[in-house]
Amino acid sequence: MRALPERCTGIFRGLALGALLAFGVHAQAQVDPLPSWNDGAAKKAILEFVQATTAEGSPKFVPAAERIATFDQDGTLWVSHPMYSQVMYCLERVPALVKAKPELAKVEPFKTVMQFLSGDRAAIAKLHEKDLIKIAAATLTGMPVETFQADVKKWLAEARDPRWKRPYTELTYVPMQEVLRYLRASGYKTFIVTGGGQDFVRVYSEATYGIPPEQVVGTAGGTKYGYGKDGKPFLTKEPKLLLNDNNAGKPEGIHLMIGRRPYAAFGNSTGDRQMLEYTKAGDGARLSMLVLHDDGKREYAYGPAQGLPDTKVGAFPQALYDEARKQGWVVISMKDDWKRIFAFDP
Amino acid sequence: MRALPERCTGIFRGLALGALLAFGVHAQAQVDPLPSWNDGAAKKAILEFVQATTAEGSPKFVPAAERIATFDQDGTLWVSHPMYSQVMYCLERVPALVKAKPELAKVEPFKTVMQFLSGDRAAIAKLHEKDLIKIAAATLTGMPVETFQADVKKWLAEARDPRWKRPYTELTYVPMQEVLRYLRASGYKTFIVTGGGQDFVRVYSEATYGIPPEQVVGTAGGTKYGYGKDGKPFLTKEPKLLLNDNNAGKPEGIHLMIGRRPYAAFGNSTGDRQMLEYTKAGDGARLSMLVLHDDGKREYAYGPAQGLPDTKVGAFPQALYDEARKQGWVVISMKDDWKRIFAFDP
Repeated sequence: MRALPERCTGIFRGLALGALLAFGVHAQAQVDPLPSWNDGAAKKAILEFVQATTAEGSPKFVPAAERIATFDQDGTLWVSHPMYSQVMYCLERVPALVKAKPELAKVEPFKTVMQFLSGDRAAIAKLHEKDLIKIAAATLTGMPVETFQADVKKWLAEARDPRWKRPYTELTYVPMQEVLRYLRASGYKTFIVTGGGQDFVRVYSEATYGIPPEQVVGTAGGTKYGYGKDGKPFLTKEPKLLLNDNNAGKPEGIHLMIGRRPYAAFGNSTGDRQMLEYTKAGDGARLSMLVLHDDGKREYAYGPAQGLPDTKVGAFPQALYDEARKQGWVVISMKDDWKRIFAFDP
Repeated sequence: MRALPERCTGIFRGLALGALLAFGVHAQAQVDPLPSWNDGAAKKAILEFVQATTAEGSPKFVPAAERIATFDQDGTLWVSHPMYSQVMYCLERVPALVKAKPELAKVEPFKTVMQFLSGDRAAIAKLHEKDLIKIAAATLTGMPVETFQADVKKWLAEARDPRWKRPYTELTYVPMQEVLRYLRASGYKTFIVTGGGQDFVRVYSEATYGIPPEQVVGTAGGTKYGYGKDGKPFLTKEPKLLLNDNNAGKPEGIHLMIGRRPYAAFGNSTGDRQMLEYTKAGDGARLSMLVLHDDGKREYAYGPAQGLPDTKVGAFPQALYDEARKQGWVVISMKDDWKRIFAFDP
């Protein structure tokens, strides 16, 4: 369900409550905007932040036009284990590459990827970062932007997560979807700020999160404007990195694409540290939150903070945990703070 | 006056007209949304485009979420003669630079700029493009983003256009402001796509055009995340070009910052050609328009299209005029199509 379009709430505030009720729009004051959250410090922090920044007369009131909230995606809004969805997309595009250029079947890293996809799950351990960069360049660049968008759309419709056997777009966290809707209903403009590919996430952000493409900031490459044989202009995705939207690249990307400092930011790993720090360093009420994956039963358990198992995918080290405590960032425990994780949970 | 927030119109369409009238919100069908436009092909093209893309049941109907319109700024939304406002900003920042580093007074191109500002208007002709790049780098980079924003704000409050002796932000075209408001009231999200500096235009875009910073795409440099002596993080403007938002850079910038093809685009010079071409190449109803400065009395007259005087600032050559005719782009004659140009016109 899509929430109210952003920045419309001001109009509603301008109408008398009695008149609104006459339309059958009921006052929401008594309705819990975060029903999938257990009572606790995390839920309280969100409710208090919204109250402080949106209640007329509040000393920390923020004008509607300045209400910006940013969300990391992988591990913050949806599942990122055992592997980032976009990495799975890149790996699963390799057979089509090999079909188009059969000689690639004998060339690394494509040979290893083909072994992995044929069922040799251990083969994946052979791939190093430089291999992944090579695979990313081969599967994410060199085609018209529309071709890429159509390929991602098709893959999303067919691909299934290995554990829940569901489309990746169903693996979003209900409590975070509630935060997105609650912030928008409170006049906040919500942005995704992801280390993932900007063009990749934009394909499904509107349907999945109610966030339009122009409010997705991500790792971005250049495009090149050119003309087809029919004389029609089109853009080709180029292997030229413009923004590495991780670590310091997150506040830099926020400045490039949004142009103002967020009032609220949500992340789950080291790559989000600078975004949370930059957000919290602003004046007035600012909210910085981190999702800790401490629920091995309902989702996954990894840190290595708080003695949780270590991981190479979206690590939350103890140093980040300590930093959060020191800086007043709020850590969300999936296990304790979330009543429900997925929409398909019983 | 700010127009209705974008994308709110869908809500209003959802309410019965009778109910709206009960609130004193009157139907606008009979009200001319473009009162500063004379009847003619240009006005007709805008009205027909909006009708075709927003009327329920129209074969060219565009869903509200996809309604994107892009506007060049200099020469399209406000005056760009005799010189771009941002170039004036850069030149007028030179005395402060020289005050901070007195040795610059003897170094070119700063020496020439100081002569120009002292009244030697002819000195400016000595400056070449490489000089302007040097001046731009010295005045637009090297400082924290907040310092730059404060400097631009201060300059805008004090600087006066040489002809009308008014703040630059008053030199916007009323007919184009009407188009911005009309499109927004019709569910379009309006963006500026300017060859000017993104950070510069973002300082005043909301107050001047009702366009928030995150909807300004412009020539953009990188920033660098770092920490002050107090440990607080901040972003420094770097002399590293990420996007040259002119010519092919306009559609490339639109893809980077917006992620979808516009349905309507407005420009006035060669630098806008690819944006208009890219817009018009999309499916369905698309509107590409060019402002022709053919009104030397009320504003300026330059082309060199249609025998108008040539210029180095925002030229509209005959080839662009011919291209417009061939591609079905609509040329707006300031002289014939606009009843009124400025808000301060009698």
